[in-house]
Amino acid sequence: MPSIALGSEETLARPAPSSPVTYAQTGVRQDLVALALSKLLEGTKGRIPPGSGEPLKLPGHFAGIVRIGRESVALTTDNVGTKLLLARTLDRWEEVGEDVVAVNVNDLSAVGARPSALVDYIAVQSPVPSVFEALGRGIGRGLKEACCHLVGGETSVVPDLVKSLDLSGTALGFFPKGRAPVTGEKLRPGDVLLGLSSSGFHANGYTLLRRLIEENAIDITRPLPGDPMPLGERLLAPTRIYTRPVEALLAARLPLALAHISGRGLRNLIRLNPKVQFTLDALPPLEGIFRWVADLSRLPTEELYQTFNMGIGFVLAVRPNHVERSLSVLRRSGGKDARVIGRVEKGRGVYLPNEGVRYDSY
Amino acid sequence: MPSIALGSEETLARPAPSSPVTYAQTGVRQDLVALALSKLLEGTKGRIPPGSGEPLKLPGHFAGIVRIGRESVALTTDNVGTKLLLARTLDRWEEVGEDVVAVNVNDLSAVGARPSALVDYIAVQSPVPSVFEALGRGIGRGLKEACCHLVGGETSVVPDLVKSLDLSGTALGFFPKGRAPVTGEKLRPGDVLLGLSSSGFHANGYTLLRRLIEENAIDITRPLPGDPMPLGERLLAPTRIYTRPVEALLAARLPLALAHISGRGLRNLIRLNPKVQFTLDALPPLEGIFRWVADLSRLPTEELYQTFNMGIGFVLAVRPNHVERSLSVLRRSGGKDARVIGRVEKGRGVYLPNEGVRYDSY
Repeated sequence: MPSIALGSEETLARPAPSSPVTYAQTGVRQDLVALALSKLLEGTKGRIPPGSGEPLKLPGHFAGIVRIGRESVALTTDNVGTKLLLARTLDRWEEVGEDVVAVNVNDLSAVGARPSALVDYIAVQSPVPSVFEALGRGIGRGLKEACCHLVGGETSVVPDLVKSLDLSGTALGFFPKGRAPVTGEKLRPGDVLLGLSSSGFHANGYTLLRRLIEENAIDITRPLPGDPMPLGERLLAPTRIYTRPVEALLAARLPLALAHISGRGLRNLIRLNPKVQFTLDALPPLEGIFRWVADLSRLPTEELYQTFNMGIGFVLAVRPNHVERSLSVLRRSGGKDARVIGRVEKGRGVYLPNEGVRYDSY
Repeated sequence: MPSIALGSEETLARPAPSSPVTYAQTGVRQDLVALALSKLLEGTKGRIPPGSGEPLKLPGHFAGIVRIGRESVALTTDNVGTKLLLARTLDRWEEVGEDVVAVNVNDLSAVGARPSALVDYIAVQSPVPSVFEALGRGIGRGLKEACCHLVGGETSVVPDLVKSLDLSGTALGFFPKGRAPVTGEKLRPGDVLLGLSSSGFHANGYTLLRRLIEENAIDITRPLPGDPMPLGERLLAPTRIYTRPVEALLAARLPLALAHISGRGLRNLIRLNPKVQFTLDALPPLEGIFRWVADLSRLPTEELYQTFNMGIGFVLAVRPNHVERSLSVLRRSGGKDARVIGRVEKGRGVYLPNEGVRYDSY
């Protein structure tokens, strides 16, 4: 069923100047989005006669799965969101082009599907060839990394509908012979959670980031201490594509659950299985832009970890006796940074003991 | 490869008040869109290693097709466009909800694929539950008519990116056992073109329609003569969904080529096969809103038939000895209005002898 990127795209109500800006201050609006979405879904209920493929019941998961003839395929759609405004400010578009591939193929990986095809949707005020050229380079780079084909797209010049440029996409994945969807229902206490680093904030939290930069009058043309790259470019870094390491682990039939840490941060783990607790007691220390955003925003830790990925972009759960082998497979396949970040326990929700944070729902 | 809805969404340069408004007056902008798109596609070229499904080479067709394991699937993406602004003016959203299903499943039908699954993308300034409720009802109605499942979606609240609401979708189709994609390459002179009526302007030409209404100070709360329905509602009529009659003809293995007459009007036929001529010598007379738009706009006929569908929303080509049987199948399956509208001849492009119009390219 349709998911919503509540955490990533909501605008912020103006807070009192002395209090830290949080996404929670949009409480009313978030309720409104949830209500609006439930209203939309009401109308779409109702039985579809057989003969059109059989959808797997996976409400709230990262992608929809349909059985078609002798194969199962996965379908997911996502947008780049307000990171596009940073791209516009810097007039750099290659990174967000890669993002539109990444945000979609990573959602496919999170159900164990291998990316196959992408279609893009660009709604634009006015088409600037140099912008499209850069977007195309980024999309091309993403497709290559994810081994995914571009099979179509829609470019719509609609100045009465969009400001500047909106970019989204839809990706189709499949399950190679002998592979079943990975949904997380087989998780049990004792299973181990492995993490792969993110390449930055990916495509989530940018409304808040832009606000922080504006309110603190930060010069994004200058780097953070110890970083050779200007802050603006650092923030624009494309979303890491996890296809290669995840495919390698899937080929070895090791993962029990897979999560793309996108909008809502670590709360995403709850989508995998609501009947176990995800205890993350070995998260990496906050460094670089993650340390920077924590210090600058003065957000409560609970807010921080549900707004940003805070350094971990993809989580993979395996049986305890498969940890060493899994780490080795990941490290050989583009996931050199793979590490144990926690474990599955009895209980519910997500628990960060070192940070003193607990999330009960997605 | 990505297609563009040039005809449907381009804004119009202001014409001299005495001359008719045409989409051609956006010539520079159309060139710019084509250039931008070619720049985008440059970057996405490059070989994808095998193992990710095999895309069929179908450049410029209505949907992309990928061979995945033992099945072929079709993927297409399209938006509702500026018809959404009419929905906003009338605060009626059910029709455009149905449109987002229709514009996509009709593109699937045009390659001979049966609709299976849809994902929707809503980018909104602020979510209004009653709007989402109406959209959901429309989407639900469209899905039911097309026998298609909603398997996901993205709702993004991005007031810095969109004005009001933008709506697009992506549909996945498949080829039931024994059915191959229908691309039009088997067309030959003598084949007969059948047409199914449109339910109105579908989702194309609305920028021009809005402009005409504004410039002529037309009251859309009043009906056209002889129509019980106010003009605004008439213009908002949802795009007809052709799934049932087309599926029936496909089940009888009769169609050689299928075309959804969307943006660019009858020029769409050229996408089917550039090596034959589509002679349309039996188009229906212009009635109702089609007569109205012709009279009001004073557009040259060539402009008219490449901007609007002018009454025919879907074209099906069959062998001459299959005409009677095909008409009978269509008429029994929701296509009571099926009629012969022309034939395939030696030559190239689209030819409308009665209107004195010839199109050489899509």
